[in-house]
Amino acid sequence: MTGTNRQVTLAARPTGFPKESDFKLVESPIPEPNDGELLVRTTFLSVDPYMRGRMNDRKSYAAPVQLGEVMTGGTTGRVIASNNDKYKPGDDVVGQWGWQEYAVSDGRGLRSVIPQAPVSAHLGLLGMPGLTAYFGFLEICKPQPGETVVVSGAAGAVGSLVGQIAKIKECRVVGIAGTDEKVQWITDELGFDAAFNYKTVDNISQRLSQLCPRGIDCYFDNVGGPITDAVFSNLHTGARISVCGQISQYNATETPMGPRLLFRLIEKQAKIEGFLVFQYADRHQEGLTQLAEWLQAGKIKYRENIVDGIENAPSAFLGLLQGENIGKQVVKIWEP
Amino acid sequence: MTGTNRQVTLAARPTGFPKESDFKLVESPIPEPNDGELLVRTTFLSVDPYMRGRMNDRKSYAAPVQLGEVMTGGTTGRVIASNNDKYKPGDDVVGQWGWQEYAVSDGRGLRSVIPQAPVSAHLGLLGMPGLTAYFGFLEICKPQPGETVVVSGAAGAVGSLVGQIAKIKECRVVGIAGTDEKVQWITDELGFDAAFNYKTVDNISQRLSQLCPRGIDCYFDNVGGPITDAVFSNLHTGARISVCGQISQYNATETPMGPRLLFRLIEKQAKIEGFLVFQYADRHQEGLTQLAEWLQAGKIKYRENIVDGIENAPSAFLGLLQGENIGKQVVKIWEP
Repeated sequence: MTGTNRQVTLAARPTGFPKESDFKLVESPIPEPNDGELLVRTTFLSVDPYMRGRMNDRKSYAAPVQLGEVMTGGTTGRVIASNNDKYKPGDDVVGQWGWQEYAVSDGRGLRSVIPQAPVSAHLGLLGMPGLTAYFGFLEICKPQPGETVVVSGAAGAVGSLVGQIAKIKECRVVGIAGTDEKVQWITDELGFDAAFNYKTVDNISQRLSQLCPRGIDCYFDNVGGPITDAVFSNLHTGARISVCGQISQYNATETPMGPRLLFRLIEKQAKIEGFLVFQYADRHQEGLTQLAEWLQAGKIKYRENIVDGIENAPSAFLGLLQGENIGKQVVKIWEP
Repeated sequence: MTGTNRQVTLAARPTGFPKESDFKLVESPIPEPNDGELLVRTTFLSVDPYMRGRMNDRKSYAAPVQLGEVMTGGTTGRVIASNNDKYKPGDDVVGQWGWQEYAVSDGRGLRSVIPQAPVSAHLGLLGMPGLTAYFGFLEICKPQPGETVVVSGAAGAVGSLVGQIAKIKECRVVGIAGTDEKVQWITDELGFDAAFNYKTVDNISQRLSQLCPRGIDCYFDNVGGPITDAVFSNLHTGARISVCGQISQYNATETPMGPRLLFRLIEKQAKIEGFLVFQYADRHQEGLTQLAEWLQAGKIKYRENIVDGIENAPSAFLGLLQGENIGKQVVKIWEP
């Protein structure tokens, strides 16, 4: 197959908040699949907060993207040519081939989409964010009926699911988000018991104390920083905190400082645990099955913010870092 | 019984590091036991870091000591008069009657000493510090053979036991302490694999990285602050941190600030948990039995720093806050 493959590569390592010029749209010929390989054409790509970490020249739990390399990330696509026994042209697959319109794969790391669900949902509810919410909340927080659960980043891909899972588990759920529209969505549409816009309250801790008069039993943290500090002032004895993300800190140029919080853990006999979705890899199928079941039963609602065209992937990502999306942010690359 | 009861009361709430003048030695008549009560004469009293918190006018997990009230704390004593069916004169008991030479009790909260062990050991190895080490380390860190365990405050009442329990569990143990003499004791006498004086190393994090080349699997934290920050830079994936105390922070006059550490928990899929020994109350007998068995088998060594006379309890406590003790700090009040 001849033609042009457009890719977004890392052009510069950002200092602080990334800029459009840290990315570069490049063109190359569409690659040819060898024996055992297949060619996939991207339908959707995912932009997620963790990608900010991959832009730094520092080994974290995963290797950084190198300068000139295609940006990493979850993708869906349709197989358009195949020398691979497992996949045939026309198959819709999910993978990790990053920000590009075409890719060759030997099939490793690919899985087929669930036909009953929209393809793009495999980057959200039925993908990494869904599994993150499911395992990170249930396994670490172990929520009990009647407990108070607070979620930060509550209108994002993961947070909006955590709140709904907490409602399924019969908890009282309070969401923290950054716009009034988000607050309205999670309370009116998703069934959160309460929510507030942290940017417009005078005192986050005080607002939390009003909304959680018996203290916070479970906290699912997507953001870190002052919001999380305020949660720490309102913990109930025996609280469990699941640390999923710290998006408020990802663009820091110096070591972020904050109030020391370990004594509060003693006082409240509380636990904080960080996790990566990969650590539950052997149970992913269980999570996907349960999430799909809740979706079909109408117990979970799902929303996407869709931007069109690979050339807009960088701005979609920058918008995500600024909290512009409601629900899962995806970039639509091609409609078969 | 007539005579004088000397007591140490809280005279002033300290700002920052406490002073001798925050305490007052007062005299009162020896109290008389009523029906069902007994009179006990104190043999030893315990001074412990948690008492600093009780001197503040802030409800933490326990109520503060009121101005003019006898200082709180663990005690041992001999029953010298009794109208109580459970205890008779001559019995040695352990309780919580605080910094005074005599006290009346209705028997609640008292227990008998284990005759095979020295009386004073019931304030350390066979008391609150021993149970703190036993449950706080084993239940939260869940150490596995071959893992690397770091203990701060490693020559104190709790830390010295945690390190020895970790050795019994076949871990590699590194202790952090504040004098060369302490370092020598825990390595030469207690069998820690390595230890260092944090006051004389150039870079705590670097020293830890040399001594823990495979990273730190378990950390038992007695101190908090910069020592704990350095541990966070050296965690192994899946690390478990038990937060027992934060003695470096107890005299702070402003909210202590430090590097934000939650992202590291994500990166390392690590857990921090704070605890109070009381939460394991229903298993205390199990802990005491095991600790006594280890002591008799020579698997655990035990050291006390003994100061004489109730008038010296304040200075013993102030010395403890400055790290002057090796092993358990007790005050000897009376030798029957």
